[in-house]
Amino acid sequence: MLQFTVHHTSGQARRGTLTLNHGVIDTPQFMPVGTYGTVKGITPEGLKAAGAQIILGNTFHLWLRPGLDVVRQFGGLHRFIGWDAPILTDSGGFQVWSLGAMRKISEEGVKFASPVNGDKLFLTPEVSMQIQTVLNSDIVMQFDECTPYDVTRGGQKHITTESEARASMELSLRWAARCKAEFARLENPNALFGIVQGGMFEHLRDASLDGLAALDLPGYAIGGLSVGEPKDDMLRLLRHTAPRLPANKPRYLMGVGTPEDLVAGVAAGIDLFDCVMPTRNARNGHLFTRYGDLRIRNARFKLDERPLDETCTCPTCRQFSRAYLHHLDRCGEMLFGMLATTHNLHYYLQLMRDMRAALDAGTFDAFVTQFRADRARGV
Amino acid sequence: MLQFTVHHTSGQARRGTLTLNHGVIDTPQFMPVGTYGTVKGITPEGLKAAGAQIILGNTFHLWLRPGLDVVRQFGGLHRFIGWDAPILTDSGGFQVWSLGAMRKISEEGVKFASPVNGDKLFLTPEVSMQIQTVLNSDIVMQFDECTPYDVTRGGQKHITTESEARASMELSLRWAARCKAEFARLENPNALFGIVQGGMFEHLRDASLDGLAALDLPGYAIGGLSVGEPKDDMLRLLRHTAPRLPANKPRYLMGVGTPEDLVAGVAAGIDLFDCVMPTRNARNGHLFTRYGDLRIRNARFKLDERPLDETCTCPTCRQFSRAYLHHLDRCGEMLFGMLATTHNLHYYLQLMRDMRAALDAGTFDAFVTQFRADRARGV
Repeated sequence: MLQFTVHHTSGQARRGTLTLNHGVIDTPQFMPVGTYGTVKGITPEGLKAAGAQIILGNTFHLWLRPGLDVVRQFGGLHRFIGWDAPILTDSGGFQVWSLGAMRKISEEGVKFASPVNGDKLFLTPEVSMQIQTVLNSDIVMQFDECTPYDVTRGGQKHITTESEARASMELSLRWAARCKAEFARLENPNALFGIVQGGMFEHLRDASLDGLAALDLPGYAIGGLSVGEPKDDMLRLLRHTAPRLPANKPRYLMGVGTPEDLVAGVAAGIDLFDCVMPTRNARNGHLFTRYGDLRIRNARFKLDERPLDETCTCPTCRQFSRAYLHHLDRCGEMLFGMLATTHNLHYYLQLMRDMRAALDAGTFDAFVTQFRADRARGV
Repeated sequence: MLQFTVHHTSGQARRGTLTLNHGVIDTPQFMPVGTYGTVKGITPEGLKAAGAQIILGNTFHLWLRPGLDVVRQFGGLHRFIGWDAPILTDSGGFQVWSLGAMRKISEEGVKFASPVNGDKLFLTPEVSMQIQTVLNSDIVMQFDECTPYDVTRGGQKHITTESEARASMELSLRWAARCKAEFARLENPNALFGIVQGGMFEHLRDASLDGLAALDLPGYAIGGLSVGEPKDDMLRLLRHTAPRLPANKPRYLMGVGTPEDLVAGVAAGIDLFDCVMPTRNARNGHLFTRYGDLRIRNARFKLDERPLDETCTCPTCRQFSRAYLHHLDRCGEMLFGMLATTHNLHYYLQLMRDMRAALDAGTFDAFVTQFRADRARGV
């Protein structure tokens, strides 16, 4: 089930509530990525404390490990991983696409060898729906082909052409229809989202959206952005596509992005985001703060007694100095990844809370101006 | 400062209270090891929740990283690492000894090259006291030479002889006197412990103890056990030495050991323990439970919905199944190390709580019998 209500708008930006089988989400909202049924470096308790209301799981990875026999025994992903709030799962399409030369795409689906044990596997729209039904995720994503921005052939960069992007988008549309049929056949009680593709071409995005709208799905995502294209292209396609998605349904921008991207996304009318950036960057010592980003490995932090962000209320900033984090990172200590992950997720989720509060208060434009000024200030 | 009170005894076992500059410790007590100013895989908050009252830091490691300039700026280790309860630091002796061929021992001290940057360093009893004074640890350990059980020379195992063990023990005694003098000169307000050496020879242990007792230090440790000797030798020397340590002062068994070793240590009259076993083994998938040890990587746990230990009240056992932990371990996920560390430390600290409760109730012998029967049962 899915219920979606938009409470306020400010320009294209929307403030809403999304009700799913495992709970209610305030939108706009950010989803931490938990590839293997764990958001790396943080407990479910820590996620809740940081304000996470929904997390993302990767169908491809969970299919391979722990495998469906295990998840089925636990009655779905929620109980297996100890997370009782909503979960969105992707379709596996992006991951098999990322296998590059190791996979073979046909009308029927994608053949590939398991990177875990070499088993020959065949992922199709139907199989993706079957897996996600076992996972029992609250939001199920259609199986799609992520149209690349460019590919390398014989050492040469080749930027995807209009006809290539069209063919790919049309394949994803046909797969969307197959997903919808299989999802219904499986009597999956959750919500299936369609994914708008079309590469860097506005008219293809429109065609994709028209095709998906005809399927009358409960939510829509924008895929194929942040896949290597220049930032201007990303913003151009985002601003073209987001406002054209059905106004009464949740809109999800897949795999994006920086704090600036989230603000641009909300301003363009997006309700849901996911990205590995806060968690992956945390482990690499890249920390987000109100006043810009900070590379903790830098020697200038060696004796710095201040918290990462003096305005931050997260457990890391309340208890630990930059100097201590610098030390932990230099020593390769696990605690560094844990504290950095907690901080970065708290930053992302606090940014979403701040945007929601500004939308509630009718001060979103002023918030955006202040956000940009703060971030430009520097730490 | 140090105050130590023994409340009850049961045979050689003692139930006491140890007051140090940063707080009060119930004894017998186990100290988690925080080599670089962090117990790997757990926050200070998590340590407190598991029941830790005191942690151990490694002088050698902290001297190299973050270095004394950083710790001095924070006024000591406690504030730098965010741990407000007592800390014991070792002397660096064991670590430089572990460098093997890379170090050169003389009467004056130990010369070695920094494993971090190759700098030539010289660790002496005086330098060790100076470093530990900057660290401001509540318990300062004397600089000693850890007498090896055996050494490999030209591919041959050579077991330390009586005369070698005697020379090494006598060097440690002379170093103890230099430590005491330097500790006084520095006006260090904490407590200096001596370390009984003497290898596998009872009469050398007695001679070491006599020499140290003459220095009238506030506490004594047994060093040089669990260094490769057969378990029977370890227990023989433990049972010989522990009851001979001054009865009115805390007794610390260094670097030991398994749950069975802790129970044997308490029964022999030991008050303090430290060991990397609960934390290191956790990260390697070796988990301790009431009913024996468990290797989570074993395929038989793949579908096991039970917690690690049905009688355990730790956050890991309250929330997660063996199957989930098995999955996290197989995927190399950080959360595995976090949850396993929390459980193993909780197990060790609960074992100490249980022993203290049995000593308080006058039921220590019955506790030991039940402990052995439970552990032999198997998971």
